[in-house]
Amino acid sequence: MTNHPAFDPSAGYQPMVRGERPQASSAPEQELAMRQWQCAIGYRIFGGLRWGQMGDGHISARDPFDPDHFWILGFGVPFKEATIDALVKVSPEGDVVEGSLGINRAAYYIHSPILAARPDAVCAAHTHTPYGTAFSALVEPFRAVSQESAAFVFNQSIFDDEELDIYDTDGGDRIGRALGSTRLCFLRNHGLLTVGATVAEAVGFFVMAERVAEVHIKAPQAKAISDEGAKKVGHILDDPWVGNANFEWLARDLVPDPSVVH
Amino acid sequence: MTNHPAFDPSAGYQPMVRGERPQASSAPEQELAMRQWQCAIGYRIFGGLRWGQMGDGHISARDPFDPDHFWILGFGVPFKEATIDALVKVSPEGDVVEGSLGINRAAYYIHSPILAARPDAVCAAHTHTPYGTAFSALVEPFRAVSQESAAFVFNQSIFDDEELDIYDTDGGDRIGRALGSTRLCFLRNHGLLTVGATVAEAVGFFVMAERVAEVHIKAPQAKAISDEGAKKVGHILDDPWVGNANFEWLARDLVPDPSVVH
Amino acid sequence: MTNHPAFDPSAGYQPMVRGERPQASSAPEQELAMRQWQCAIGYRIFGGLRWGQMGDGHISARDPFDPDHFWILGFGVPFKEATIDALVKVSPEGDVVEGSLGINRAAYYIHSPILAARPDAVCAAHTHTPYGTAFSALVEPFRAVSQESAAFVFNQSIFDDEELDIYDTDGGDRIGRALGSTRLCFLRNHGLLTVGATVAEAVGFFVMAERVAEVHIKAPQAKAISDEGAKKVGHILDDPWVGNANFEWLARDLVPDPSVVH
Amino acid sequence: MTNHPAFDPSAGYQPMVRGERPQASSAPEQELAMRQWQCAIGYRIFGGLRWGQMGDGHISARDPFDPDHFWILGFGVPFKEATIDALVKVSPEGDVVEGSLGINRAAYYIHSPILAARPDAVCAAHTHTPYGTAFSALVEPFRAVSQESAAFVFNQSIFDDEELDIYDTDGGDRIGRALGSTRLCFLRNHGLLTVGATVAEAVGFFVMAERVAEVHIKAPQAKAISDEGAKKVGHILDDPWVGNANFEWLARDLVPDPSVVH
Repeated sequence: MTNHPAFDPSAGYQPMVRGERPQASSAPEQELAMRQWQCAIGYRIFGGLRWGQMGDGHISARDPFDPDHFWILGFGVPFKEATIDALVKVSPEGDVVEGSLGINRAAYYIHSPILAARPDAVCAAHTHTPYGTAFSALVEPFRAVSQESAAFVFNQSIFDDEELDIYDTDGGDRIGRALGSTRLCFLRNHGLLTVGATVAEAVGFFVMAERVAEVHIKAPQAKAISDEGAKKVGHILDDPWVGNANFEWLARDLVPDPSVVH
Repeated sequence: MTNHPAFDPSAGYQPMVRGERPQASSAPEQELAMRQWQCAIGYRIFGGLRWGQMGDGHISARDPFDPDHFWILGFGVPFKEATIDALVKVSPEGDVVEGSLGINRAAYYIHSPILAARPDAVCAAHTHTPYGTAFSALVEPFRAVSQESAAFVFNQSIFDDEELDIYDTDGGDRIGRALGSTRLCFLRNHGLLTVGATVAEAVGFFVMAERVAEVHIKAPQAKAISDEGAKKVGHILDDPWVGNANFEWLARDLVPDPSVVH
Repeated sequence: MTNHPAFDPSAGYQPMVRGERPQASSAPEQELAMRQWQCAIGYRIFGGLRWGQMGDGHISARDPFDPDHFWILGFGVPFKEATIDALVKVSPEGDVVEGSLGINRAAYYIHSPILAARPDAVCAAHTHTPYGTAFSALVEPFRAVSQESAAFVFNQSIFDDEELDIYDTDGGDRIGRALGSTRLCFLRNHGLLTVGATVAEAVGFFVMAERVAEVHIKAPQAKAISDEGAKKVGHILDDPWVGNANFEWLARDLVPDPSVVH
Repeated sequence: MTNHPAFDPSAGYQPMVRGERPQASSAPEQELAMRQWQCAIGYRIFGGLRWGQMGDGHISARDPFDPDHFWILGFGVPFKEATIDALVKVSPEGDVVEGSLGINRAAYYIHSPILAARPDAVCAAHTHTPYGTAFSALVEPFRAVSQESAAFVFNQSIFDDEELDIYDTDGGDRIGRALGSTRLCFLRNHGLLTVGATVAEAVGFFVMAERVAEVHIKAPQAKAISDEGAKKVGHILDDPWVGNANFEWLARDLVPDPSVVH
């Protein structure tokens, strides 16, 4: 059992319980339902922040039955109108095997190899944000300049590559190698990319990373704290629970009625 | 036949098909209807982004029957309330020959000569945006600092001229010469201007250019990728299809019900 | 007769006519009605831009019957809910002589002396804007960095004074002297202030000045055009008509139904 | 008797009276009702500004019956949906003793020691704002760069500490010592924190401090006025009345119908 309201959307959101970690369901049907629900809500969170208005970026959800397949929002659906029905299932060959909409091939080129390279991850999230895009053009990692940065300063990587739009799965393979075991990868001159063991985690950390990028851009002279200090903060924030909690907060704020994705 | 929903707005937007290029209709009546629909929707996209609130800028649509005439929104109509009925047809002499509203003469001075200089273009788009205006005051071209920049770095020009408000068609002629065969012209200390073979293309690239300007302004120290790398990305993004797709995404997001322009 | 819709709000906005200048009515009752209507709409424009949320700033309207009296919005009314009924009439002694609400004394200290010093002005407008406040802390005039700047570069002044909140009418007198015959005064470390021969003109130029401040803040390295070039642009933009037109555009965009102020 | 509309929300907001200071009620029941009302409205003000969307930060209200207990919004409730019923009462040991929701322990670690260290304060307010977070990374105090800064330049402090997320009440104790008798404390690389003798005061000054941070970030070259000048402005603005008035303005603007918190 989990604390996700996905399984009874008619009841709306339930109170959040601090510190409760999401648990994968042992029933794949239920696990799929949760991942799809989080995926659709995740797109709506991005849309609620006015991100992705030109269809830039995706949120993928690995299929629990066919772990080399993943779900993303069909091509052409505005993020803020995402629904579970508008998700499509993509095969390892890049074919849509469930769902009636098409896809952006670049999504396949990026997400398929990353999910293959990271069996621990269920989701990758990426879009071109107001500060993350600008920050990624500096080709630098985050420094410990704000509380939220502690989730990333020991858990980040840079894809220092000129392939700004990914042309094939080889590009995605290289992102996967750059990402390594980290949670956040800066795609040079392109933007932020996060992964997570749940869709919620990847989305929640993605929004948090955007906030950290904002501090760097607005305060280039920011004084970072010490590595030692950052590690102490990281004991709290460099934890999957944080990404999930971020998602739950954002969902309640930006998608007040979760039944809209059904 | 085209994939534009213009011809049956009561049906709402249809699913987008990745890679499908818009085709001009061989029937001028239908072509006119599509251009007018895109023009009105384009103004609403600008309005949805809170641009043009002081009536600054225009989106023109060449008339398919009288190719030296063009349509723009009548003077005084807020962009976010644009309708097809509020468009007016302007003659090569700057007279309103169809429609009941007046025009801003500056629109005629700019758009008429540009459309004359660029027979391949159906539309020019210009407004004073939050980042494009600031960027145009630097009197520099875009560098290859973000994915979106690849649509422009080999397809841009600068109108390095002190005529910040165009006084007559001579000013527009000079813009046309500065523009040359490019897609994007920086009007010095004035803002961005794009052209396209469809209204959608010009509008879609305009919004994309604003995003690129944003990166330059927020990250003055951005490291560009190499020309060679930018050319590779340009093979994907420096393509009319991209501008059209941007428009379709923005329309679905910012004008959820396309029937409002009728 | 004027082109202002104030006198028949039930009819909504009428089409704007390019180049038409507002004319004062020879009937003071009608002139008062127009000034009050513009004043209330002006506050709603500021509110629509999310300005003045802490009650900072005012828009004054000189009374045509008692030219040493002026109207402002009563204390405590959110700008975005301004109505004509919520305006109060303030005497040269700072007393509320019509209307049931109180005032912020600072409004009297600022607006009464300025309107006394500028018999040509009907209105002064001031609020603490996102870019104007920051720009005013640089204690510099505008340079000719954008089209809109041409309305101000030969028509601006600086109140270089440490009285950041005005304590008495002596402070307002000094602002009046600093303002001289200009349209725009930078109140050092405090913000922008404009005056106009109509309420609409002052408000319209105020919003335009905020845009110019934005360019300066976002592009500190902006290259200005020459004085000669700026004068040419100024022949078009340094004109009361422009402020009035700005107001009309903003009103239609941000206050779609003008009857809400009645 | 007070001028707070809390006690008859069905009547909506009453006109504000300039200069009227809030008075604590001698009846604890009534005082509690007012504090809870201001607390819930305060969260909605933050939410209306799009702050706290990831649950970051809190507004506390000291209990008048049990002055070592305080109220905050229960864990997981979006700020913009705050209600009085969703507040919970927290004991000096960090236990929820009234209300059905949980809390974020960090809130207890921060707010309990601060309210203990400042018996004159009824409230502490903190959230991670767009400019305050960036400014706090500069590890500098405010300079007298804008009118609003005069409320703080002689009434501010810095918690120059690497504990960016507070781990226990010892962290809160240290914040309390850094805060001293001031109204505003910069939590290094973390954000702004204000206290007040009413909830409204703390919230109203918090929003004002964000505005001052914005000026510093946007205009790093801002010229401050002299200390002497700042002291004169401070005679007006460095006053609890100002924080309360800010709150009243913001509430009317961002929470038009105050009955929503009941």
